[in-house]
Amino acid sequence: MQDLNSVMAKAVTARESFRKWDAFQIIALLEAIAHKLDGAASELIPLAGSETNLTEVRLTGEVGRMSGQWRHMAAVLKKGDYLGTVIDSADPTLQPPRPELRKTTVPLGIVGIFGASNFPFAFGVGGCDTAAAIAAGCPVIIKAHPGHIETSRKVFALMQAAAKSLSAPEGLFNLVEDFEAGVEFVKHKDVSAVAFTGSTPGGRALFDIAQSRKDPIPFYGELGGLNPIFVTEEASAKNATTIAQGFLDSVNLGAGQFCTKPGYLILVNGDLVRNEIVNLVPNVATHAMLNEKIRAAHDLNRSAYAGLPFVKLLAQGVATSDAIEPITIFEISGADLLANQEVTLKEVFGPTAVVVNCQSNDEALAIANAFHGTLASGIHGEASDKIISLGLLDILVRISGRVIWNSWPTGVAVTWAMHHGGPYPASTNSLFTSVGADSIKRFRRPVVFQNMPTELLPTELK
Amino acid sequence: MQDLNSVMAKAVTARESFRKWDAFQIIALLEAIAHKLDGAASELIPLAGSETNLTEVRLTGEVGRMSGQWRHMAAVLKKGDYLGTVIDSADPTLQPPRPELRKTTVPLGIVGIFGASNFPFAFGVGGCDTAAAIAAGCPVIIKAHPGHIETSRKVFALMQAAAKSLSAPEGLFNLVEDFEAGVEFVKHKDVSAVAFTGSTPGGRALFDIAQSRKDPIPFYGELGGLNPIFVTEEASAKNATTIAQGFLDSVNLGAGQFCTKPGYLILVNGDLVRNEIVNLVPNVATHAMLNEKIRAAHDLNRSAYAGLPFVKLLAQGVATSDAIEPITIFEISGADLLANQEVTLKEVFGPTAVVVNCQSNDEALAIANAFHGTLASGIHGEASDKIISLGLLDILVRISGRVIWNSWPTGVAVTWAMHHGGPYPASTNSLFTSVGADSIKRFRRPVVFQNMPTELLPTELK
Repeated sequence: MQDLNSVMAKAVTARESFRKWDAFQIIALLEAIAHKLDGAASELIPLAGSETNLTEVRLTGEVGRMSGQWRHMAAVLKKGDYLGTVIDSADPTLQPPRPELRKTTVPLGIVGIFGASNFPFAFGVGGCDTAAAIAAGCPVIIKAHPGHIETSRKVFALMQAAAKSLSAPEGLFNLVEDFEAGVEFVKHKDVSAVAFTGSTPGGRALFDIAQSRKDPIPFYGELGGLNPIFVTEEASAKNATTIAQGFLDSVNLGAGQFCTKPGYLILVNGDLVRNEIVNLVPNVATHAMLNEKIRAAHDLNRSAYAGLPFVKLLAQGVATSDAIEPITIFEISGADLLANQEVTLKEVFGPTAVVVNCQSNDEALAIANAFHGTLASGIHGEASDKIISLGLLDILVRISGRVIWNSWPTGVAVTWAMHHGGPYPASTNSLFTSVGADSIKRFRRPVVFQNMPTELLPTELK
Repeated sequence: MQDLNSVMAKAVTARESFRKWDAFQIIALLEAIAHKLDGAASELIPLAGSETNLTEVRLTGEVGRMSGQWRHMAAVLKKGDYLGTVIDSADPTLQPPRPELRKTTVPLGIVGIFGASNFPFAFGVGGCDTAAAIAAGCPVIIKAHPGHIETSRKVFALMQAAAKSLSAPEGLFNLVEDFEAGVEFVKHKDVSAVAFTGSTPGGRALFDIAQSRKDPIPFYGELGGLNPIFVTEEASAKNATTIAQGFLDSVNLGAGQFCTKPGYLILVNGDLVRNEIVNLVPNVATHAMLNEKIRAAHDLNRSAYAGLPFVKLLAQGVATSDAIEPITIFEISGADLLANQEVTLKEVFGPTAVVVNCQSNDEALAIANAFHGTLASGIHGEASDKIISLGLLDILVRISGRVIWNSWPTGVAVTWAMHHGGPYPASTNSLFTSVGADSIKRFRRPVVFQNMPTELLPTELK
């Protein structure tokens, strides 16, 4: 195992000197990193392709998204309201008299980050968590995902080079590769928060370690979701082909390896959509999954789901090679799903999803209520459709962090209003997002200065 | 034990109907409760006095503070920015195209609340956590503190009466009294967050339960602090009497039963302050502690501290009755404190505090670094004093949620900029405050609506 203590000692030194950087210096660093990453796209894309089987088109988009996240964080710093400054003037006439209070936020400390398998760039070593932590003023210690170790090293080297060109402290970026080192930094006294994107069991195990520390630390785990999409009875009658095609495209994106994959399509008397799915599946071409371990896990989980007595195979694509898992759509009746929630509501990571056939709006509402927390959910229909008046939207708001109308959950815009999170197990803390402007808030902590002399106040409070 | 399931079933019903209340309705409820509580002050004050030994002056102020919290939450709702609304318009020219995203926050769900022993009103059944949760749109289930059960029942009845007068849902306010019921609601599937004010061991035990649930929930524990106050060498020379008197007044407030009591006064060559404390202690009149159990615990903890070989008794007041614990000031050298941090840095709840005699600024800085997270900390001095240039303020910002200049930590203004929280163990989540406008943010969760028809959006997003 790497010597974590010497890594952490450098990070502590960096924490203290980075704290003195002003927003303009950090903005320059964020933009230098974005520039450096873009400049290396032609190296990064084939490297990641060789490690993950993801397509060139997808990886090209993802490098742009990665650098875009750094630029967006620079924009967040320029806007400035992430600081959360609030000032109360002194008021000696009140009973009790009110002192002068000036509140801002400060960097939380060193942040430990676990990159995801499925987005080597956007959620990897140089992904959204790293960009948000650095923007917040926090050094990072990153656990590289073993699924794309060379890509991780390359991205890390690019960030380091950009940091060096601006004389950033040496220990600002730190990379570890051993599984044990990741577990150890979650326990380390000098780590102040952890961000994680990955599976529910892996995330939960690390969450438990972070919470059982002598001093528990914030653990921001994004653990995925089932992302149920409801199709109203009226929409099934009107737009069966469009909905069926959109669903299959979204399930198949990146070989189904998205945390926002629409895992369940709930139909109310929706045979037209169901039948169109059967017609369209043979045209769906799947690419190879990230690696053999993930492919094997998909195969196993899909087989387990297929083995449930009340589950039927609705349609399956054709595998053109051993490395490829074909798109697989199961179907189940609403009644059977409700009667067997413990086994029927399960994420199968990969190009597999479930069509749920309901016979009434009430059954579909009961199913909406049966879902646990999820990143996203959605409705295909019109505002005047019957199930809307029965309260479907209220239920989806209760279970999810993003509710989508007449579109699909894959694709998470990096922007001001985005929220990527949701009730457990979508997130371990549903109040925070891992994508978008507010993701920086995970890594800053309020401090209020009472009656402080002006010359000692942080710049933004003067 | 009370039947928790029937209580929770009513709270769930209330959650769904209260969700439909608009901000104006909730504002009316908050103001009605404030009015009702003020109107009963003449009953509440003697009742709480008989249960807690707190003085009439103190309790009169505290009733005003309690009702003031409800009114302040009404002002927060009127201002509206607690909603955190952000809107991104659609942009089809971007690659990938950006959908329309409208973000707001929604009530988190039912909130479990544990009232504190030491503030029967401000942090009690009708205290800051309850006001913030109701303002956030969340029903509450409150565990009454056994130290003032009749006061708790009376405050609860007043809130219920105000709620009834505005036809609020029946299960909006719920009170439980058994210890077991409190533990059970932390585990209950329909409780979505917990707020707690009290001791570190008690809060940590409940935190552990909340985090080990199948679906962990936010636990906002305010567990107190040692609240170290540093006196610069220059200030000791100039203002010894004022500082000594201010320190003793702050330690003695409410018989030392404040989570913001200045537990440690760190002097650098500050014999003038030390000697003034010795002179002034005989004039300090302490009142009886909250109850016999708390008095006995103070006596025990004070004895344990007195028994440490490197701790000396600096000054002690006179107890005028058996119920009264006299003010007690210990002293210890900076070197001994540093060499024995595990035993010397300990909260003694009650009118006891410690003077730390340092021989140099470096020693005082090392001591600042030795403190764990604390609610407040402070400095007496001038901006030009030597220890400031050596970085004392940076250290205090790192360990605390509020940093105070030339005043004392007791007294927490209920206002826009207040932050009452800090790194663990001050708070179990240092990003949130339990007092002031932002306390409402603990109980709302972001949701983003993507491409949603206007007629289906929450009012604030239309």
